[in-house]
Amino acid sequence: MGKTITEKILDEHLVEGDLTPGEEIGIEIDQVLAQDTTGTMVWLQFEALDLDEVQTELAAQYCDHQTYQFDFKNTDDHRFLRSAAGTFGAHFSRPGNGICHNVHKENFAAPGKTLLGSDSHTPTPGGLGQLAIGAGGLDIAVAMGGGAYYVEMPEIVNIRLEGELGEWASAKDVILELLGRLSVKGGVGKVFEYTGPGVETLSVPERTTITNMGTELGATSSIFGTDERTKEWLDEVDRSGDYVDLQPDADAEYADEIVVDLSEIEPMIAEPSMPDNVVPVREAAGQSVEQVMIGSCTNGAYEDILPTAKMLEGREVNKKTEMIIAPASKQASEMLAREGWTAELMAAGVNFSEATCGACIGIGHVPGSDTVSLRTFNRNFEGRSGIEDDSVFLCSPEVATAAAIKGEIIDPRDLADELDDLEDPGFELGRGYDRQDADLIAPDEAVDDELVKGPNIGDVPLKDALEPNLDGEVLLRMGDNITTDHIIPATSDILKFRSNVPKLSEFTLSRVDESFAQRALDADGGFLVAGENYGQGSSREHAALCPMYLGVEGVLAQSFARIHKANLFNFGLVPLTIDEDDYENIEQGDNVEIVDDVGQGVRSGQEEFTFRVNGEWEGTAHLDASEREREILAAGGKLSWTKQQTQGGSGAAPADD
Amino acid sequence: MGKTITEKILDEHLVEGDLTPGEEIGIEIDQVLAQDTTGTMVWLQFEALDLDEVQTELAAQYCDHQTYQFDFKNTDDHRFLRSAAGTFGAHFSRPGNGICHNVHKENFAAPGKTLLGSDSHTPTPGGLGQLAIGAGGLDIAVAMGGGAYYVEMPEIVNIRLEGELGEWASAKDVILELLGRLSVKGGVGKVFEYTGPGVETLSVPERTTITNMGTELGATSSIFGTDERTKEWLDEVDRSGDYVDLQPDADAEYADEIVVDLSEIEPMIAEPSMPDNVVPVREAAGQSVEQVMIGSCTNGAYEDILPTAKMLEGREVNKKTEMIIAPASKQASEMLAREGWTAELMAAGVNFSEATCGACIGIGHVPGSDTVSLRTFNRNFEGRSGIEDDSVFLCSPEVATAAAIKGEIIDPRDLADELDDLEDPGFELGRGYDRQDADLIAPDEAVDDELVKGPNIGDVPLKDALEPNLDGEVLLRMGDNITTDHIIPATSDILKFRSNVPKLSEFTLSRVDESFAQRALDADGGFLVAGENYGQGSSREHAALCPMYLGVEGVLAQSFARIHKANLFNFGLVPLTIDEDDYENIEQGDNVEIVDDVGQGVRSGQEEFTFRVNGEWEGTAHLDASEREREILAAGGKLSWTKQQTQGGSGAAPADD
Repeated sequence: MGKTITEKILDEHLVEGDLTPGEEIGIEIDQVLAQDTTGTMVWLQFEALDLDEVQTELAAQYCDHQTYQFDFKNTDDHRFLRSAAGTFGAHFSRPGNGICHNVHKENFAAPGKTLLGSDSHTPTPGGLGQLAIGAGGLDIAVAMGGGAYYVEMPEIVNIRLEGELGEWASAKDVILELLGRLSVKGGVGKVFEYTGPGVETLSVPERTTITNMGTELGATSSIFGTDERTKEWLDEVDRSGDYVDLQPDADAEYADEIVVDLSEIEPMIAEPSMPDNVVPVREAAGQSVEQVMIGSCTNGAYEDILPTAKMLEGREVNKKTEMIIAPASKQASEMLAREGWTAELMAAGVNFSEATCGACIGIGHVPGSDTVSLRTFNRNFEGRSGIEDDSVFLCSPEVATAAAIKGEIIDPRDLADELDDLEDPGFELGRGYDRQDADLIAPDEAVDDELVKGPNIGDVPLKDALEPNLDGEVLLRMGDNITTDHIIPATSDILKFRSNVPKLSEFTLSRVDESFAQRALDADGGFLVAGENYGQGSSREHAALCPMYLGVEGVLAQSFARIHKANLFNFGLVPLTIDEDDYENIEQGDNVEIVDDVGQGVRSGQEEFTFRVNGEWEGTAHLDASEREREILAAGGKLSWTKQQTQGGSGAAPADD
Repeated sequence: MGKTITEKILDEHLVEGDLTPGEEIGIEIDQVLAQDTTGTMVWLQFEALDLDEVQTELAAQYCDHQTYQFDFKNTDDHRFLRSAAGTFGAHFSRPGNGICHNVHKENFAAPGKTLLGSDSHTPTPGGLGQLAIGAGGLDIAVAMGGGAYYVEMPEIVNIRLEGELGEWASAKDVILELLGRLSVKGGVGKVFEYTGPGVETLSVPERTTITNMGTELGATSSIFGTDERTKEWLDEVDRSGDYVDLQPDADAEYADEIVVDLSEIEPMIAEPSMPDNVVPVREAAGQSVEQVMIGSCTNGAYEDILPTAKMLEGREVNKKTEMIIAPASKQASEMLAREGWTAELMAAGVNFSEATCGACIGIGHVPGSDTVSLRTFNRNFEGRSGIEDDSVFLCSPEVATAAAIKGEIIDPRDLADELDDLEDPGFELGRGYDRQDADLIAPDEAVDDELVKGPNIGDVPLKDALEPNLDGEVLLRMGDNITTDHIIPATSDILKFRSNVPKLSEFTLSRVDESFAQRALDADGGFLVAGENYGQGSSREHAALCPMYLGVEGVLAQSFARIHKANLFNFGLVPLTIDEDDYENIEQGDNVEIVDDVGQGVRSGQEEFTFRVNGEWEGTAHLDASEREREILAAGGKLSWTKQQTQGGSGAAPADD
């Protein structure tokens, strides 16, 4: 049977399982990347693994979210990341050098390789044939330590492109069209492969705009094959040696096929406040626009900003509108400057920013109250811009620039009719990329050889292997549907402590009970008890890490949210299911003792455990876990488990700090 | 008797008093400027004056401190400022267009004119012969309303420049040398006039670096005469028509003379954490430098960044060091881009920022913990960079760039010895400035004709004229040395409410008593009682405005800090001095009644007022006030008083809101 592109790459990297959709597979990772807000925890976890150096072919650490360094904690994070990259053998990209996905694409991404990144838009270089997946920090740390990455084998869906884009239509409109059709859940558990005769009409930067925003479809990844256009682009970035031929077999079987006729795509826009809330621009036309922003990992490349520059040459941004361009990489900024476009854009009234993710995640250039902001970014979730009640539209650079000129939303085709001399700038590939390496520090140029930790950067705790006896107080008894936001809030006053587990842990479950963190520390061990669906919401691993740090050893709940349960395994907390009657009978402050030998039971596959409450009555708790999950749990969590693996299974779990 | 430059300009603008040092004079203001963090209150106060339009020749509103728009409140402030400028007839400079002093210098500053600005570095255009003074927001609002500006006639000191700067020495070193000699208090109550044969060796941008930092000497202003170099520069900015001849008379008398031989100046550096903590660079050499920043109103002009660009051409920023350039104006950015320097700087590893004050006031690029930052800025007060325990050095662009190349502090002369090909880039005047006006909105181009107030922007309260009876509760009884930080804290969580008096007032005296604000509102009038030196510290007018908003009508204290007492008059609160015995006998919660007719007493020049406490005992309070202060107090504060003046003295004070 023929293979898809994804299957070919997975086949070459498979270390466990087989390629049956829905089954867990383990794959070898060639490259990893981390950004600054997730990277600190990645490296703290890597440090805890006690390894000398990165085991993957390549690792790269970027500083892109907190480029503005509004708080010394951001600057200290960057300094720590540089020291970690230098100490452990990763490339380091200085703050201001650009967004991880773009700098990685320009310098390191390679067809046929696997890439794991601690950022959800990691699939970006799928546009040049790399199989790239976003994951949590612990997975990145483990992959850097040489461990496999485990993921459910996705379904492979064929997106067949036909025809060619018409005037004023762009790659951004293609992915907006797909979002409109499939919704933000349309890609869950899937990899989208782009095939068909339309592919060759799109260059690599156009393709990466599409693969980047596959994340908004919920896809595991998105990928294009390689061809002459891939060669052409790799040649421009001076890396033609990285080219490999990569196409699906003629008889490859796909789980589904979706046909997109590029010639029918027109300028689209995602209205507030979901990326799939897509309409043709003409349907949103006429709304006054106070802010226009060009940039982000979706549309911040040189090729994305060039049409904007051409449209604004000799024109001015409307006086009612503020226009900010934040290029996605300094290479893009430098090329624009070298060719004279930066001066033209400034003369037109553009405020040129540092290369940063910035505004896309609400850091800087927060829109005003009750105003419309048009952005070439990938997400417009309510409040993401930094103001709760925002009104953010997503669109192509051409649509955004048309609005900046007009002062209101307008289809650029209609603006071209209004302004005789406005022509579709078309798409032009950059020629001869500047080798921007002043801001990249290669492992052999490292300026640090030990970790530099500012006062806000702590160590990451490790947990001991599971002991036979599990016995402790019910530290908190909660109701149904406790979210990860309840467990560890993500508001900005708390987010800045994400490199500092001891400090962050002080906020654990504070929204349920402010006294919890201190009580848990004082109790030196104990249980959480909850109703249905405990841990729903985000995937943040701190929701397991922080309770672990405070000494929580197990959670008794009627049911668990899927991802949080995986995180409990990863951090060595025993997730036990109890029935409603027992839940009702347990009270906060009760003593709970697991009667069986837990360490042995977890290892041996035991599913039922007897627990005794206050020495007075007994109930039965269930442990539903795969063999791998049991191994991880028994070892004290994934870090301890990985450490054992890399140390030849010595089984010597390090002490908690 | 001959006149100094300052006396000539003052003479032409004098509306009250005579030019005797130490005496109050009133002068007419030709131009005003405001920046974004002080401008909102300026315009709210102007709004309260009920005038249709700005009365000065020119008013300009800039958006420079909060350019990054980190909070929607910043963006809303900018939108409000644009609407205020449009509504009342001021020029508006969009966020990203640059720092007020630089954009004003490039576009509007003119020799012989008076300029009042709500920023302490307003004296910058003294370098081209403008008499420019920094003042509080209320003074700016009143000046915009056509009122005179009242100031103590300063002493005029002659700084006689001789010789010519040697290799690697710069204008920044001249002012650092003066700071080292005179200290940060050396200019209090003075205007520094720069004369002598050395003047003609300095161009306007070099002169404005010197006048800008006269503020750090504590000077009221600093000024150069005009000459061929002034003409040359005005010609380059396409404003040769603004030239007027301005020189001191040969027999002008100065209060003091200080001689500086430019040929003896060497590269200097101000060590942490005071601008007058100056040593030759060689004495600080060898310290590792983690951050270098070029920019600010002191050294952010095109001419200041050009030497940096030349020094870095073909070189790289040290991998240990982060280098950020924040040009002071978009015109500077555009010129650098147009001439290819921006691309070179980026290639060298420089992170190019938007044109902003930013880091100079701790907004963005906060240094890391326990690291050295070299900055071309004007202040290095401890904590100003955004981290409490900072280590900020001030120096010229040449010294800063040398450190960026070397990775440590080094005298550029020594670096030139190390690097054979490093030459002093010298000073070069920009040729043919770009007319950057896409970001300036002239009054006749205004896009708003009514005020746009986001939810964080309130009205400014006005106070009624003083009534005969003053009677109320002692709302708070405090000890000695209460500072304006006690009265209105300036921490960032509170600063963002500076456009919102009702909200800001909630924090009034919260550091003394958290319940105060609510109690004051509930009491509907009352007194503050304090010991010695009440209101010491900063000049912030909110320390009077907020208590006024809460209903406080008078302060009984053993003594007052000078500036705060002036602010109490300005906001209509009666400042009465009491003796120690009476202070000891008054308790919080007591009722205090001024027995005399206060309204009439204040107006008539009465100095002693009898007060009765709880109807039980009496004491004597003193009012020490000039005639003008009494008029202002009687009217209900300076806003109400100005309103009366502009309405032909109708005396109809508007109602409190």
